[in-house]
Amino acid sequence: MREIQFAKGHGTLNDFVLFADPDGQVQLSDAQVRALCHRRSGIGADGTLRAVRASHVPEWDGDPDRWFMDYRNADGSVAEMCGNGLRVFVRYLVEQGLAEGPTLQVATRAGLRRATLRDDGLVEVTMGAVHVGGGVHPPDGRGLERAEQPGVGRESVAAGDVMVTVGGQTRAATAVDVGNPHAVVFVAPGALDSLDLTAQPTWEPWAAFPRGVNIEFVDVLAPDHVRMRVHERGVGETCSCGTGVVASAAAHQACHGAPDDIRVDVPGGSLTVHLGGEEAILIGPAVIVAHGTVDVAEEVSVE
Amino acid sequence: MREIQFAKGHGTLNDFVLFADPDGQVQLSDAQVRALCHRRSGIGADGTLRAVRASHVPEWDGDPDRWFMDYRNADGSVAEMCGNGLRVFVRYLVEQGLAEGPTLQVATRAGLRRATLRDDGLVEVTMGAVHVGGGVHPPDGRGLERAEQPGVGRESVAAGDVMVTVGGQTRAATAVDVGNPHAVVFVAPGALDSLDLTAQPTWEPWAAFPRGVNIEFVDVLAPDHVRMRVHERGVGETCSCGTGVVASAAAHQACHGAPDDIRVDVPGGSLTVHLGGEEAILIGPAVIVAHGTVDVAEEVSVE
Repeated sequence: MREIQFAKGHGTLNDFVLFADPDGQVQLSDAQVRALCHRRSGIGADGTLRAVRASHVPEWDGDPDRWFMDYRNADGSVAEMCGNGLRVFVRYLVEQGLAEGPTLQVATRAGLRRATLRDDGLVEVTMGAVHVGGGVHPPDGRGLERAEQPGVGRESVAAGDVMVTVGGQTRAATAVDVGNPHAVVFVAPGALDSLDLTAQPTWEPWAAFPRGVNIEFVDVLAPDHVRMRVHERGVGETCSCGTGVVASAAAHQACHGAPDDIRVDVPGGSLTVHLGGEEAILIGPAVIVAHGTVDVAEEVSVE
Repeated sequence: MREIQFAKGHGTLNDFVLFADPDGQVQLSDAQVRALCHRRSGIGADGTLRAVRASHVPEWDGDPDRWFMDYRNADGSVAEMCGNGLRVFVRYLVEQGLAEGPTLQVATRAGLRRATLRDDGLVEVTMGAVHVGGGVHPPDGRGLERAEQPGVGRESVAAGDVMVTVGGQTRAATAVDVGNPHAVVFVAPGALDSLDLTAQPTWEPWAAFPRGVNIEFVDVLAPDHVRMRVHERGVGETCSCGTGVVASAAAHQACHGAPDDIRVDVPGGSLTVHLGGEEAILIGPAVIVAHGTVDVAEEVSVE
């Protein structure tokens, strides 16, 4: 048994168990992560966020004095980055006195990220470079029209059109790379709520995303305002996905000439994406809900 | 804001936020209970269990020195009793030093209950009297045969046969009263896993359960061993239901002449029901997972 001091927090209902392990002494097994994240027999969360000094992370070759965000999914698997998690992580670091705000840099598996606790209570994080790729899209939700965005990194993603099928309907998608792969589908006005995202989507050509893809379904409400639902790779529909929010905004700008500041509403809340700089910036809420202690068993049998 | 010291615990995956309020000063609104029980923006649970001295509970007219189990469902509504909750509640009282074990009495909205923390780590609780009523049932899962159990309180529930329909299939059910209403359906061997309980079940005659009913689907594995899935009134399928476990065992005994000790497996684990006495006894696990502090906002807006 090992007792862990934890916090539970969420960003637009994407929720996490957070704990500090400055010296890298708490290496949880997949089963232990699953036990912590189990919603009934554990604390319950979409994943764990371990704060560890970067000097104790072998794969990190940058500044060793940064805090490293060790994000694990609820199934125990390692994840590169999580925009919602990063906001909550930074809130936790400052609240616990582990780092000073309002602006700090955090090491992640996707590289260094900058975060700011804003005066309005929201948290702003850099999300890296975004590349909008090929794909066709129906700009008004009815017709189909080829996207021509040669200047925004088309070469970085699969060439050619991508068609996404979910719930028996096939729609054109725009490929977006936010460090992880996304396919953004613009739907007809008002059609978002009736989408059935319970089934596993498929896409053509398969080779466009051989390792799977996160798929965003986007309803454009105004030039600077969209609504989104997301089917996350390996998970299913979720309340929110930070990189998916950025991908949706970037695809909307690339396809429809939207401005640099775009509000993106997701089932779990509302976020803002700032485009136009070298890195996309994601702005949204980050809440610490509770603090506590939990025993992590050496041997975990709960599935 | 009010800071609450809480514990999170579960019994066969039926989970609860527990807190002590000896002097009855923490009267949570429905919205506050919903916020605590929200699985992403709160701690997450099926309900809250408040430990309050019975002298502070106006509706309690028994011994004022008992601990009263104030159980609220995740939607904020008041619930009479919960067999899984009672086990976890007693574990919490003793662990926190609020009561001495191994045997104690707890006041509930359904009356006084006796609980024992057993040497084998399980918790044993009294569940009140059980009345098995009318209804037809297929003893081997194929034929239909009338249950004749004139000695076990047939008059306490609706007379006549009850037919339950769920997922397009209609089956005969046995009515059981465990303080709350149950309809127990025996299914063909091996048919339990394929049942579709996502739809709201209906029953005939409707007047048998005008306020709704909890419906248990039971596969008889051996004379002293059954498996059960449950559709809880107003909730849907759950991992476990303490009164439903008792109802299933009692119906099995009444219909098939089972012994007094019956093991009941549910999706969340395994329990034992002891029949034969004036009150049914439920035996099962009760686990405290974590302890912590949480702020309960005066005004709660999260749904």
